Amino acid sequence: MTKDVEGEAKGGEHYLTGLSKHRIEALSDGIYAIAMTLAVLNIDAAELPSWTSPETFFSALSVIWDQLFHYAIAFLTVGAFWVAHQQRFNYIRHVDRTFLWYCIMSLFLIALIPFTTSLAGDFNDISFAVQLFGLNLLLIGVCENAGWRYASNHHHLIDPTLKESWIMQSRNRGMVTPAIALAVIVMAFFSPDWATILFLLVPFIQMSMNIIGRHRNRND
Amino acid sequence: MTKDVEGEAKGGEHYLTGLSKHRIEALSDGIYAIAMTLAVLNIDAAELPSWTSPETFFSALSVIWDQLFHYAIAFLTVGAFWVAHQQRFNYIRHVDRTFLWYCIMSLFLIALIPFTTSLAGDFNDISFAVQLFGLNLLLIGVCENAGWRYASNHHHLIDPTLKESWIMQSRNRGMVTPAIALAVIVMAFFSPDWATILFLLVPFIQMSMNIIGRHRNRND
Amino acid sequence: MTKDVEGEAKGGEHYLTGLSKHRIEALSDGIYAIAMTLAVLNIDAAELPSWTSPETFFSALSVIWDQLFHYAIAFLTVGAFWVAHQQRFNYIRHVDRTFLWYCIMSLFLIALIPFTTSLAGDFNDISFAVQLFGLNLLLIGVCENAGWRYASNHHHLIDPTLKESWIMQSRNRGMVTPAIALAVIVMAFFSPDWATILFLLVPFIQMSMNIIGRHRNRND
Amino acid sequence: MTKDVEGEAKGGEHYLTGLSKHRIEALSDGIYAIAMTLAVLNIDAAELPSWTSPETFFSALSVIWDQLFHYAIAFLTVGAFWVAHQQRFNYIRHVDRTFLWYCIMSLFLIALIPFTTSLAGDFNDISFAVQLFGLNLLLIGVCENAGWRYASNHHHLIDPTLKESWIMQSRNRGMVTPAIALAVIVMAFFSPDWATILFLLVPFIQMSMNIIGRHRNRND
Repeated sequence: MTKDVEGEAKGGEHYLTGLSKHRIEALSDGIYAIAMTLAVLNIDAAELPSWTSPETFFSALSVIWDQLFHYAIAFLTVGAFWVAHQQRFNYIRHVDRTFLWYCIMSLFLIALIPFTTSLAGDFNDISFAVQLFGLNLLLIGVCENAGWRYASNHHHLIDPTLKESWIMQSRNRGMVTPAIALAVIVMAFFSPDWATILFLLVPFIQMSMNIIGRHRNRND
Repeated sequence: MTKDVEGEAKGGEHYLTGLSKHRIEALSDGIYAIAMTLAVLNIDAAELPSWTSPETFFSALSVIWDQLFHYAIAFLTVGAFWVAHQQRFNYIRHVDRTFLWYCIMSLFLIALIPFTTSLAGDFNDISFAVQLFGLNLLLIGVCENAGWRYASNHHHLIDPTLKESWIMQSRNRGMVTPAIALAVIVMAFFSPDWATILFLLVPFIQMSMNIIGRHRNRND
Repeated sequence: MTKDVEGEAKGGEHYLTGLSKHRIEALSDGIYAIAMTLAVLNIDAAELPSWTSPETFFSALSVIWDQLFHYAIAFLTVGAFWVAHQQRFNYIRHVDRTFLWYCIMSLFLIALIPFTTSLAGDFNDISFAVQLFGLNLLLIGVCENAGWRYASNHHHLIDPTLKESWIMQSRNRGMVTPAIALAVIVMAFFSPDWATILFLLVPFIQMSMNIIGRHRNRND
Repeated sequence: MTKDVEGEAKGGEHYLTGLSKHRIEALSDGIYAIAMTLAVLNIDAAELPSWTSPETFFSALSVIWDQLFHYAIAFLTVGAFWVAHQQRFNYIRHVDRTFLWYCIMSLFLIALIPFTTSLAGDFNDISFAVQLFGLNLLLIGVCENAGWRYASNHHHLIDPTLKESWIMQSRNRGMVTPAIALAVIVMAFFSPDWATILFLLVPFIQMSMNIIGRHRNRND
C-alpha cells in the first residue's frame, strides 16, 4: 500500500508517495454514509405543523410524503454510485494527484446530495429545483466516469491483469445513471413532480446490462 | 477478499467481482453510527422554550423527556440490530448482487430511524406516529432476516463449515425484534405512549434464548 | 479475530462467536467522531440575530461565546475518553456479551454529549443544566471503567501478558475524569457558568499521573 | 502497530503503549468526512423563503448562492488538508502523547469548519465573519505543521529511512494554505465578499511547488 519514498522522484510515473488507497476508501465510505443518512434530517418531525392532532396527523404526514419519496430516490441512487465506486476502486493499484482530485471532486458532489434532495423534496412543483437534483446526479456520474476512464486508460493506475472487456463493461454500466439523470432533467420541464421516478429504472437497466455482459463474456 | 476478474463470467455463481466485503462493513458501520447518533439532534436544547428560567427549567425539561426516552429505545434497538448484523456478516464469504441489495435496503431502513424516532417522540400520544416507529423496526428485522436466510440457505454465501444448528439459532434469534415490533404496533392502538416500552424486553428475551441455545448445543 | 463456531458451546467461557473486535472499534470510532463533531451544529450562525450588521456583529457573536466554550470543553473531554478507550481496547483479546453491552452503553452516553453540551451552552446560568452535562461525563467514566474492570479482572478478556501494574495504572487514570465531573456537579450549585472550567484540569492531572506512573515502573 | 507493554517504562522514548496509529486514522477520517459534509446542512432548503413560487425561485436561490460558494471553498480546502494529513501520517511509525494532542487539536479545529463556513456564508459582507473563517484555516495549518515538525524532527516518530529532502518539501508545501489564509484575513478588511476566492489558488500553488520539487529531486 505504501510506495517507497523514491517513487515521486522516479521520472514519468509520479505516483503519490505516502498516499494509501485504504484511507481514500475510508474517507469515501464516511462521506457516502453521511450523505446517504443526512438527507433524512430534512424530513424530520419539525416540518409537521405544531397543531397536529390525532385527527389531522394523516393529512399532516402527506406534507412530508414528497420529501420521503425524494429521500428514498436519493438513497438508492447514491447507493448505486457507491457500489460502482467501490467495485472499481478494488482494482486501483496506484494513486496519483490527478486521480485524487477526481475522487475529491466526486465526494464534493456526493456531499451536495442532502441539499439538492431537500430542494427537490420541498419544491417538487418547480422544474428548476428538480433539475438541480438531476444535475447533481448527472455530474457525479460524469466525474466518476472521467476518473475511472483516466485510471483505466492503458491500465494506468489499475491492476494490469484486468481484462479489457471488463473495463469496457464497467464504463458502459457507468453511463446508465447519467443518461437517466439527463432524461429526468428534460422530463422535469413538463412534469417536475414525476420526473425523478425515472431513477427507479437504474437498478433494472443495470441488471439487464449485467446479464447481457455475462452472456457476452461467456461467448468470448 | 478480492475475487479474481474471471469470477463474474463463471457460469452459475456470479459472485460480485471487485466487491470487497470489508467495504460493505465500513459503509454499514458508518450508517449505523450516524443513525444511532443523529436522532439525538431531535432532542436538542432549541426545543426548550426561550423563556426558560431556573425556576421553570425542570418543567421545561419534561417537554423533551419523551424524546429522550424514545431516543434511548431507538439507540438500544439499533444497537441490537448492529450486533446481529455484524455477527452474521462475519461468516459471509462471498457477496452477490441480490445480497448486496438486501444490505442497501436494510441500511435505508436504518437511516430512517432518526426520522421515525423523532416522530414517535414528538407525537407520542398519536397511535399512528408510534406505529410508524414500530413499523420501521419491524421492516429492518424482516429485511435483515430475509438477507441472512438468502445468504445462509445451503451455505450459499457463508462459511461452509458453519454448523446448521448455529444458523437455525441465529434465525430464531432474529425473530425476537420483529415479534416485539408487531406487539408494539398492536399495543399502540390502545396506549401509544407506553407501547414502545416493550422494546426493552428485547435484550432479556435474547439472553434467555442464548442460554437455552447453549444448553441445547451442549446436549447435542 | 474470528472465533471458531464451537466457541459459544464451550462451557464457562462463552466468548461471542462471530463477533470481531475490529467492527466494535469501527462503530466506536464512528460514534466518537460524530459526537465530537455534531455538537458544533448547535453553535451555527442561525443563532445570530438576523438584524446583525457589521457594527453589532461583535456583540452578536458574544451570544454564542458560551456555546463555543462548552463545545471546546466537550470536544477535549470526549477526546480524552477516546484516547483511554482505544488504549484499553488494544489489549482486548476476546469479547463476550456482557462486555459488549458495556460498550454499547458507553456509546449511548457518548452520543448524548451533543445534547447535554448544547444544554449547558444555552443555559449556562442554570445549575441543573450544567450539572446534566457533568452527569453525562461522570456516567461515561463510570461505564467505561466498569467495562474495563470487568474485562481486565483476572485477565478475563485481555492480553494475558499485560502486567498487573499497567492495569492498575489505567484503572487509576480512569478515575480522573469522573472525579472532576463530580467536582463540576458540586461546584455548579454555586457558580454554574464557571464550573465546567474544571474539565480543563483533566489533561494536566493525567499527565502528572503518567509521570508518577513511569517513575514507579522504573523503580519496580 | 501495537508496542509491547514494557515500552512506556523504557527510559527516554515513552511511546504510547497500546495506542494504535490505525485508530487515530479512523477517528481522523471520520471527523474529516463529517466536517466536509456537515457544512452542507447550512445551505438547506429551509433557508429559502416559504413563499417561493416558480417565478421567484431563481432569485430565492441567489440568497443561498454565497453559502454554496463558501461550502465549495471549505470542502476543497479541508480536502487539501486531508491529503497532506494522510500523506504525512503514512510515514508515522510511533505515536507519543504530545503528538496525539497535536492531532486532537487539529481535529477540533477541523470540526469547527462547518461553523465558520456558515458564518462566512451568512455574513459575507462583514469582514470579521470572513476573517474568522480564514483564521480557522490558518490555525489548522499552523497546528498540522507544528505536529509534523515535532514528529519529523530528527526522525523522532517517523520512518527513519525518509529522506531529509522529502521532509523539507512537505514542510514547505504545508506553508501554502496558512500563507493564503493570512492573505485572506488581510484582504477581508477591504473586500470580505471576494477575499475567500484566494483559497482557490491553493491547488495551483501546490502543484507548481510539486513540479519544482520533483525537478530538484532529479538534480540531487
